[in-house]
Formats: sequence, structure tokens, C-alpha cells
Amino acid sequence: MSDNEQHPRRARDLGIVVGALPTGRHNAFTDVPGVRVGHTTIVDAPRLHTGVTAIVPDALGPDRRSLPCGLFVGNGFGKLVGATQVAELGAIETPILLTATLSAFRAADALVTHVLASPGHEETRTLNPVVGETNDGRLSDIRARPIAESHVLAALDGATADLPEEGCVGAGTGTVALGFKGGIGTSSRVVGGWTVGTLVQSNFSGTLIVRGVPIPADAVDEPTTSAGEPDGNSCMIVVATDAPLDARQLGRVARRAVFAMARVGSDFAGGSGDYALAFSTPGAPSSGTTPGTPARRVDDHDLDPVFAATMDAVEEALLNSLLTATTTVGHRGTAAAVPHDLVLRRLRAAGVLPQPSAGTPAS
Amino acid sequence: MSDNEQHPRRARDLGIVVGALPTGRHNAFTDVPGVRVGHTTIVDAPRLHTGVTAIVPDALGPDRRSLPCGLFVGNGFGKLVGATQVAELGAIETPILLTATLSAFRAADALVTHVLASPGHEETRTLNPVVGETNDGRLSDIRARPIAESHVLAALDGATADLPEEGCVGAGTGTVALGFKGGIGTSSRVVGGWTVGTLVQSNFSGTLIVRGVPIPADAVDEPTTSAGEPDGNSCMIVVATDAPLDARQLGRVARRAVFAMARVGSDFAGGSGDYALAFSTPGAPSSGTTPGTPARRVDDHDLDPVFAATMDAVEEALLNSLLTATTTVGHRGTAAAVPHDLVLRRLRAAGVLPQPSAGTPAS
Amino acid sequence: MSDNEQHPRRARDLGIVVGALPTGRHNAFTDVPGVRVGHTTIVDAPRLHTGVTAIVPDALGPDRRSLPCGLFVGNGFGKLVGATQVAELGAIETPILLTATLSAFRAADALVTHVLASPGHEETRTLNPVVGETNDGRLSDIRARPIAESHVLAALDGATADLPEEGCVGAGTGTVALGFKGGIGTSSRVVGGWTVGTLVQSNFSGTLIVRGVPIPADAVDEPTTSAGEPDGNSCMIVVATDAPLDARQLGRVARRAVFAMARVGSDFAGGSGDYALAFSTPGAPSSGTTPGTPARRVDDHDLDPVFAATMDAVEEALLNSLLTATTTVGHRGTAAAVPHDLVLRRLRAAGVLPQPSAGTPAS
Amino acid sequence: MSDNEQHPRRARDLGIVVGALPTGRHNAFTDVPGVRVGHTTIVDAPRLHTGVTAIVPDALGPDRRSLPCGLFVGNGFGKLVGATQVAELGAIETPILLTATLSAFRAADALVTHVLASPGHEETRTLNPVVGETNDGRLSDIRARPIAESHVLAALDGATADLPEEGCVGAGTGTVALGFKGGIGTSSRVVGGWTVGTLVQSNFSGTLIVRGVPIPADAVDEPTTSAGEPDGNSCMIVVATDAPLDARQLGRVARRAVFAMARVGSDFAGGSGDYALAFSTPGAPSSGTTPGTPARRVDDHDLDPVFAATMDAVEEALLNSLLTATTTVGHRGTAAAVPHDLVLRRLRAAGVLPQPSAGTPAS
Repeated sequence: MSDNEQHPRRARDLGIVVGALPTGRHNAFTDVPGVRVGHTTIVDAPRLHTGVTAIVPDALGPDRRSLPCGLFVGNGFGKLVGATQVAELGAIETPILLTATLSAFRAADALVTHVLASPGHEETRTLNPVVGETNDGRLSDIRARPIAESHVLAALDGATADLPEEGCVGAGTGTVALGFKGGIGTSSRVVGGWTVGTLVQSNFSGTLIVRGVPIPADAVDEPTTSAGEPDGNSCMIVVATDAPLDARQLGRVARRAVFAMARVGSDFAGGSGDYALAFSTPGAPSSGTTPGTPARRVDDHDLDPVFAATMDAVEEALLNSLLTATTTVGHRGTAAAVPHDLVLRRLRAAGVLPQPSAGTPAS
Repeated sequence: MSDNEQHPRRARDLGIVVGALPTGRHNAFTDVPGVRVGHTTIVDAPRLHTGVTAIVPDALGPDRRSLPCGLFVGNGFGKLVGATQVAELGAIETPILLTATLSAFRAADALVTHVLASPGHEETRTLNPVVGETNDGRLSDIRARPIAESHVLAALDGATADLPEEGCVGAGTGTVALGFKGGIGTSSRVVGGWTVGTLVQSNFSGTLIVRGVPIPADAVDEPTTSAGEPDGNSCMIVVATDAPLDARQLGRVARRAVFAMARVGSDFAGGSGDYALAFSTPGAPSSGTTPGTPARRVDDHDLDPVFAATMDAVEEALLNSLLTATTTVGHRGTAAAVPHDLVLRRLRAAGVLPQPSAGTPAS
Repeated sequence: MSDNEQHPRRARDLGIVVGALPTGRHNAFTDVPGVRVGHTTIVDAPRLHTGVTAIVPDALGPDRRSLPCGLFVGNGFGKLVGATQVAELGAIETPILLTATLSAFRAADALVTHVLASPGHEETRTLNPVVGETNDGRLSDIRARPIAESHVLAALDGATADLPEEGCVGAGTGTVALGFKGGIGTSSRVVGGWTVGTLVQSNFSGTLIVRGVPIPADAVDEPTTSAGEPDGNSCMIVVATDAPLDARQLGRVARRAVFAMARVGSDFAGGSGDYALAFSTPGAPSSGTTPGTPARRVDDHDLDPVFAATMDAVEEALLNSLLTATTTVGHRGTAAAVPHDLVLRRLRAAGVLPQPSAGTPAS
Repeated sequence: MSDNEQHPRRARDLGIVVGALPTGRHNAFTDVPGVRVGHTTIVDAPRLHTGVTAIVPDALGPDRRSLPCGLFVGNGFGKLVGATQVAELGAIETPILLTATLSAFRAADALVTHVLASPGHEETRTLNPVVGETNDGRLSDIRARPIAESHVLAALDGATADLPEEGCVGAGTGTVALGFKGGIGTSSRVVGGWTVGTLVQSNFSGTLIVRGVPIPADAVDEPTTSAGEPDGNSCMIVVATDAPLDARQLGRVARRAVFAMARVGSDFAGGSGDYALAFSTPGAPSSGTTPGTPARRVDDHDLDPVFAATMDAVEEALLNSLLTATTTVGHRGTAAAVPHDLVLRRLRAAGVLPQPSAGTPAS
């Protein structure tokens, strides 16, 4: 980080708060009990800026072979591995990986390696690895497909329940969003005793909107260079919750996760692969020979708080993914971090944030 | 209209402009050549505030039995008549009606009557009427199902290519949106020589956002009364274009139409039926014995301007639906018109609109 | 019935048995506890041969507002009313009606009347009536839309748990299938302590196959006359079960129900609306304010017997719908009953049925 | 092949003909102009019986980046790579590979290697490889994932327009279907001047039916051993045609391809991944910067012959996949070839085939 480069800060650390609902302890995906996140970051500047992010539900193991999961494909210009079985069975049976487009299949193969080697999988002969991706080909030499099995295993093995790193890390190392450097972001909300956690890999086009205020990328002195790239790459969103939702309900949650992209200014370009996966950690179903623990059902009439929590947490995770990212000089261009002072100035001018009192740091 | 009631005004008449794309002549659905709109409004205050809106593509007739059409169901808590055949054949074969939930089936039956009596339909023995609906049960006695065949036929027969009436008219007579009186709204955009027109029936929950600025319903002196109604009723969106898109592409357009609801503050509640239909007027296919005129295809790579036009036109149509609606005292409560002066004051305070110079009318 | 006309007989009464699984008591839809079936038959020969069939789940009432339901659209050239909400909520909230295409909307409206007048629905202001249809326009003057509210209410009110009438009755009065007179058919299977009941409205094209043996329509002396009608009209299939399946699983069941049409020779013509609805009667969810009874879940690994039961019961219901139908002289042609003796002769020739011993009745 | 083992023979070589439509020259997938098929077969008995089958459309190249494609997921218990983008864009942009479940991701990665190295792809930074799979884990050590990049490239490079090898070859080397040794099968039909070609990888459960006559697996002296494997693995079906269909229409074709599995006795088990992809070779669209050649449209009313051709060709391809396969002793059991003489005997007994005259070979 150069002297004049800003320190990554989360939205709330800058005073930017989305919605009125309380967050979990870390304001992160990992606030959902039993889910962990790990990253492997690959940087060999300026040519390579890529990586892997692993989302690991602890409940998957010898006694529990699947978790309820819903999927929404907002725009299917993407290569999500595992989609049709998730839709059919309403379940995931592996951790979820995020990575770069052309490396998604290597990552899926490595995920198979990982699960086959896990306890209880000695006799497993079918498996549905789930791997999402976005295209980091502007900042990274995506054709090189640098993701190796070791990178995937490291992300899986290193997953923790701490606040995940955000910004230029893991699968977000080389992404660009809304004309700025994008990356990994996370947030959470607590409603009705349940936690909803979101994690995003932001890499899509449009004009950044922060709490209603546009922050055009060209307002920056040294803006992101496009290298003739088409706008619109993708956004992968993962939602986890300990609310005992079934797959159909989780599909409804996943839809709202994509809808929330509009709040930060996505233009939903045709070349963007916009996907959301939403899974639930409690009880049923166990798609194995051991019966799942019957779970209390949530009535569809009671889902609105979960929907609201999801949309707020996705919006904030997307903001976090940009605000924590740092300017990156890459393979085919440069992506500028969104300037915190610009954002704050505009939000203050719009009355969204109060004018700083004496003694408040500038950003 | 009482003395102190505001005059309905469209967003642009108040200086509120969505996006940079040019509009069509009327800034309306009917800017798309060959589509007409008609309304039948039923008011017997305070008990009945309901009606029918008819969207009539001229191209449907003896020589052309269908138009390409795509459908997106953002949230299927609704009763859209005709959905599965639209999805299968990628086509509509009748005008599209909008009305009140419990009257949708009477309206569909009347639409059958209308088409069977049309020239060229003497031997027609199958037909897929398309009827959308939202629930106007707060302001109208929806259980009475007051829509009769004559109301439907009047809307169809009265359809014109003029600027459609907006606000408390037709299927929007009794709707409530974002805590204010909703209704019918329309807007259009012109991109690449094509026109994209939108028409909405707004009736959904959330907090109104105008160009990024929240306008909470409780900021009003005499707010909308809820009568214990659940939030979230529905939003029907219809998009028409003369761009020669096929059904799959129109489905992509329809998705963006629903996504745009986020821009005005929809909370995408679980009880809201959020649907978009998008149809295309040129050439192919004729699903009859007469071959359709081969149409120039639009490459998917070239759809982004159409997507952008759709989202801007839906956003503005939704704003128009509220700004042109008037306070309505209904069957089970009152819905307040959104106060123009409040909106303008807030947009000026946020710097979205300039401060009025001397001589500018207050609203 | 003329002197030389055959008596309607069910497949099993002719010795034709599909599969090895046991049937329920009546070998009928109504073997599923808590479901009833009623018919209204409208005949004014030769012009009108139509009607309504009502499927009434007793569980729907003041305490239980919905039952889990899945839908599969094998070919969406049909007008199924209520489809999108069934898909969204995975539930039905009304009885299911079957009728003639152009009368489906009148029937839906009448179903709304019926439910609004039911105990506990005094305050109901939204409702998703579910009405399936096939096109009986060859034998009945479908443009006349003769179904009135009274016909629908009679079918609903007359529903019983007895063995439903089959053949030329209710919604099957005027249907034609596989070149013969079609109609209503029903069958059931018992697996793992659960009952699977099916009811079909057969009206589709192809070449009849009975247990693998083709029975071409032109093998008959006085075959069905086509009146220039396009082949392929539709098939509506309803499956009920007391297995506690959720909506996703019921969607899987519904898919198999349509797949089973291949066994009797459906050609899955493009103009045929081939739909299956599958619902489950136990416990959850109650989509109202009263929580649903938590139900034991069925693991997806345990569904294969249910799938097998469904396919066998649909196949047999389809055969029953033809074997119990009688030759009908209608509005635009005649539909010949499939001759039992021809079927038996061919099945014996193929070795599917044993040669009749002395004393066995010819058919 | 041991002395007493039967020679692989295609259905027609045994006198078994499906339907009345004419076949193409080879009665094979490759009868569609511009499509080639290649296999890499991996056998290291008894442990490994697996491979790769490549379907290569010549039209894909520098001037044409995509072909219209439809997908139907009959039962999504499978890992089809590339599904969501095929659905979104209605197109394939790579050859299609078939292989073994756990090797699908390695194969997809190798397919990326292949395409990136192709002329015109020097700047390609996104790609949607399409790889289908079924599970050959009974006869092959699937956990070993023996498919290497070289195997995939060999299948692609070796693809020809000749009659493809069938039976125990390529992706069909280790599959088991309907209680017998399955494999690769192919067939074609010519309708209305268009060719419809099918290629299947058969690996699913049920009871074999040949032209209506059941051939139970336990009628064989040395039947297939199950090794405790669950029934039901999968079936991948690929359909190609030179009819100028769009993606929606090809989706309708794909549905019929899966429906046709019922004709040979599939039980559509829940653990079976039953997928069909259907693509069209003419003209539009080119999803690149070069506009696609406008193609004559086919009206949906004219699709029935294509549907019939598809269903007949899938049925015959499935029969060919079994009749050309040979008994295989594998990793966890043995799969018996379906005995031709048994099939012929039963078909003659049922009157489906004539009794052999003197001089006709026994099988």
C-alpha cells in the first residue's frame, strides 16, 4: 500500500449503515453458527490477481450429507458448477467454492478430491461439487488458469469462523465492480432469533450507489481503465441462515439476494453472471441413510423479515466488498479503489450522513 | 378533487428525470408503434375503486395470431392467467388485461368473448387469454367482483394510441404502493432506433425512493391507513418493444423489469405478486398457418441498451403511477397521494434537484 | 347405450393389470384418505358433451389453508389457472377443477364463489383457484362455453369419497384420446403404508398401447372421425398422496406422472397441454396464521416407490379412462369407444394375457 | 470376446425397427451435416472401464461462436457442466463431452484447454464448456478419476462424421442400463428434409422393453450383479438437427427426448440424472460480433414431425446402446450383455417379429 493509499474500511466503520436491522457479532457470513470461510489469494503482480474462497458448512459430515439450498439465476451468463442437482434435490452436499471463471472446473475437481478424502466418504462414488465464479480477466491472466488443487485445499483447510477478510482476497482478488476495484464482502443481520449471513464476490457493471447517492466511477482522478473489456462480468452471492427454511423458501431468499444488487447500482448487464445460492444449516434433510432431524418449519407468511435481512445484508456486503478493496494494477488495466473521502463527501452533501463535527477524522 | 388537493403531475413535469436515455413522443407505452391502451374505471365511493386496463397490440389479427412474449415471475404470489402457455410457446395470442385479483377470471372469460367475436376467429376453439392482476382489496370491495364483461369490452374497445391516463384509473383505481396511493403509470425510452414502452399497475410495499431519496409514507400528515392489511400486494409490469426480440430475449427483458422495482424501494414482500410480461411487435413468429415475416435478429450482445431502457422506463412508470394518483378514501381505509411538495423538498435537500430559483412554482 | 354397445369396464375387470404394486380399496383417487371427487356432466347431444370434475381435499378448511403441491408442465399448450402461485408457494389453497378449455375461466370464477362462501373465508380477499382443462371441441360446441357457476358448485357439492365415475363423465364427457373416446380415469397404488391416487382427463394424440401392445385406432370398423381437428389436445393429471412430501418432492412426482403418458402411446404433440399436479394431504404447511402440524419428512432416497406407484397408477388411470368410455356422437365428429374385444384379442395374441379357457366370457 | 459371446449388432441388423420414419444414411447422430463424434475408451480390466465421448459441431469456429441449444432436465441428479448458461443464452459455444461423473470437471477443464487453443480463441477469456456425465462406478473405479486432459483431447481430435462406434466405447464403456450392459447408442431420422440425430449414454434403471415387450434382466442365466449399487444412475441424451429451430423450440425437443426413455422401460428413478441437450446447426444466432445468418424459422405448429423423429431416434439409440454392448467384468460387479436370441425369441413370441423362416440365422 503506497503512502497515499487509503486503508480498507468497512461501510459501518465509515458510518455507512444499511437499514435498521441489527447485525450479528462480526456483521459477517460467519455469524451464522456452523459456517466457516477461507481464502487462498494468488498475486503475482501485475499478471496474476486471483484466488479461491471456500464456504464450509460444518454440518456437512459423516452424519449429515446435505443441507437445504435454493438457487436463483438472475442472469445465467456464468458457469456455476452443480446447479441442476441443487435445483432437483434442493440441497448442497459439499462446501461452496468461489473462484475465477476459467478455473472453476479445476476448482470443482479439487473440491471432489477434498470431499472424497473426508471421513465418511470412503465409499462415495457420486458427488455434486458447487463452484461459483466471476471473471477476473481484466486484472489477472485468466487464460493461465493458475488455480491448482493445493490452492483449493488451502482455502478449505484454512476456513475459520472469524470475520472473513474482505476486498482483494480469495476469489475477489482480481474483480472489478461498478467501475471500482471490487472483491469479497460480507455482512449479516439478525431477525426473529435467526441470523442471515451474506458473502459476495462483486464483479459487475453499473454506477455505484451508496445509500441512494450515485458515485460515478469517472468522478475519480485516476479511474479504472477498461482495456476494452465489456462491462458486466458477474456477481456471486451466497446466503446462509440458521432459520429452518426448506429449499423452495431458500430459493425465494436467493431471488431477493439478486434483487438487492439494484440497490448499489447494478445495471444487470447481459454479460453478467448474477447468481445467488442460499442454504440453511438446521436439521432436515439428511439426504443420506441417516434420517435428518425434523426441523420446525417456517411459514411462508413469516419470511418477510428474512427477505428484508437478506436484502440489507447483501447491499452492505456489496458496499463492503468495494470499500475494503484497494487499487490494483493488473494484467490488462488498473482498478481504482473507491475513494472513501469521495463517498463520504457525497453522502454528507446529500444529507445521508451528517456533516463531520470538529475532531471527526476526514475519512 | 378538493381545493387543497394537488394536481396529478408526471415525474418529468415535476423535474424528476430517470436516466439519460431519450423518451418516446408521449413518454408512454403507446410510443411503441401498434400498441394501444384502454381503461375502464369503476368508482362507487367509498366501496368500489377498481377497474380494467387493456393493452392491445394491433398486430394481433386475422393475419398474425401471436407475438413473441417473455415472462418473469419475480414472486409468484399472484394469479396471472395464461402463464404456462406464454412460457411454452413464447407468445401471446390475445390482448393483455390488468384488473383486480378476484375478478381476473371474469376478465379472462370476457377476453375470450372479445377474441372469439373478432374477425378471423369464427373457427377458433382454443385461446390463451392473458390477464394480470393486483389486489385492490384495501380501497375496493374486492369480494364483490364488480368487473363485468361489459367493463372488459369497453376497455378493449376504447383502447387508443394516445398517452394513457395514469394514476387512479383502470386497474390502478384502487391500488396502494409504497405507503401511498398507487395506480397505473407509464414511460418509454428510445434506444438504437427501437422504442421500449412500459406500463405498470403499482400495488406493492416498501419505502418509496425517488432517485435515491427515501420518502417514507409516515412523513405525511394524513398517511395511508392500513386497516390491518398485510403489506405487499403485487406489481404487474408490461413491457412492449418494436425491437425484434425472441421469446427468450424478452424473458431477459422481463427479468430486468422486475429488478427495477428495487430502485423505487420495493421490499419484494412474500405476499406480493411481482410479474413482468415483455412482448415484441415485429414480424415473427406467426403461430398460425400464415408464415411470419422473418425478422432481423438482435444478438444477445446487443441487448444491454434495451435492458437499460427497460429499467429506466419501469422506474419512471412506477414514479408516474404514484405522482399522478390522488388521495382515495376507500372501502377499508384511505390511501394518501404522495405529496409533490414533500418529494421536491427532499430531492432539493439531497441535491438531486436544484434549489428553485425565484419564479419557479413551488411544486 | 345401443344394444350392441359394450359395457364400460375398468382395465382390471378385463384382466389387464399394470405393474405388481397393490391398489387401494377402490383402485381410485379417492383411496387417499380425505380426498373426494365430484362430477357435473353436461350432455345435449350431439352439440354439447362437456362438464366439470372437482377434486376436493377435505383438509382444506378453516384450520388449514393450503396443502403442499407440485406442478409439472410437460407441454404448456394449455390454460391451467393458478400455476404461478402453485409454483411459488408450493401449495394449493382451493379444490382443483377440471373442465373444457374455453370454460376454464368461468369455472375458476365459480370456484372463487364457492370458496368465498365457505366457512372461515368471510374475510378472504385473495385466493388462487386452480383449474385445469383440456379441449373437448371435437365432440362439444366449446365456443358456447356452457359451464355455468351452478355446474361447478354442483360438482363441488356432490364430491364423494366413493369410487369416482369414469369415462364419459364430468370433464371427460367430450374428450378424445389416442384415436378413441377418452374421458376420466382413476387408479391407485399402496406403497410403504402410503396411498398414491391418480385421476386423469385424457384427451391426447398418439397410438394406444396397452401393456406394450399397440391398438391402432384404424383397426376399428367405425373409427373416430377427425373433422379436420389437429391431433393432440391435452392431458390433465392429478396425483394425491398421504405420503408427507414437500412441494419440491411433489414436483418430482408430477414429472413422473407426465412421463407415464408415454406408456400408453402419447406422442407428446406440440399442441397438447400435458400437465400434472401432485398434492399431499398430511400436516404441513398451513400457509395461514395457525402453524401447520410438523410432518415427518420423507428422504428423497425413499421416493422411488412413490415414483413407481405414480407411474403405474397414471398408466392404469389412462387405460381406465378409455376402457370405461362409450362411443359418442358429437358436435364435429364421432369418437369410438376402444373395443374391449379387440384389446383382449391383441393382448392374448401377444401373450400378455392368457388364452381364454372354456367358460371365460369373451370380454 | 470369448467364443460363445455374441457379436454386437444394431437393432435394425436384428430386424428391430422403431417407427415408420426413414433414417439417415448411417442411422446415426453423424447423419446431421456438420457434426462429428469421437471416443476415447479407457479399459484396464477389471478396474477401469470408462472414457470420453466428444460431440463436435463443425459450425463452431472463428466465424460462429454459438449454436442454438435447448436443455431439459428430466431428473437433475447429475452434474451437467454448463447448464445455466445454456438456459440463459439458449446456446452452446463448445463441443459437448460425455464422461464419468467424478471426472466431469477434469473433462470440462480439458475442454477449456482445447477451445482456448483453437484458432480465433487467442483472446477468449470466458467460455462455457458443456459436459454431461453418468456414473460408471459399478464397472469402473470412478473414485480414481482416470480421465486426463490427453483423453479428452484425443476424443475431440479423433471425432469423425462416420457412423460412431456404439456399445462399450467412450463414455459408455462402463455403463449399465435396465439390468444389462449399457453404453453409447445412436440413431437418426429424416423428416421434412431435415435430419434429427441422437446419441445416448445409457446408464439407468428399470426393466428393458423392446418394442413393447419386456425383457427382464433376471431372465438371463448369468445376470448383471449389482454389488449393492443403487438402481438408477443416469442417462445423457444429445440431439442434433439441421432444422433451423431456436432455443425455446429445442428445449421442447429435449423434453421429448427424455420422455422417450419411458418407451424402453426407464423407471425414472430418483437417483438418475436424466438430461437431454438438443442443438441446431443452421445459421443464427452467432453470439459474437459477427451477425448470424438469418435462418428460416420453423413454426411451432410444424414441430410434431421433429418431435416424433426425436422420440423414435432416442428409443432406437437406447436399444442400440444395449444391443451393441458386450458383457463386461468390472470393478464392483459384472454387467451382462442383453442376449440377442432372448430378445428375438420374445419379440417373435409376442408377434412383434415374424417367426424365422428356414435359413434365417438364429440371431
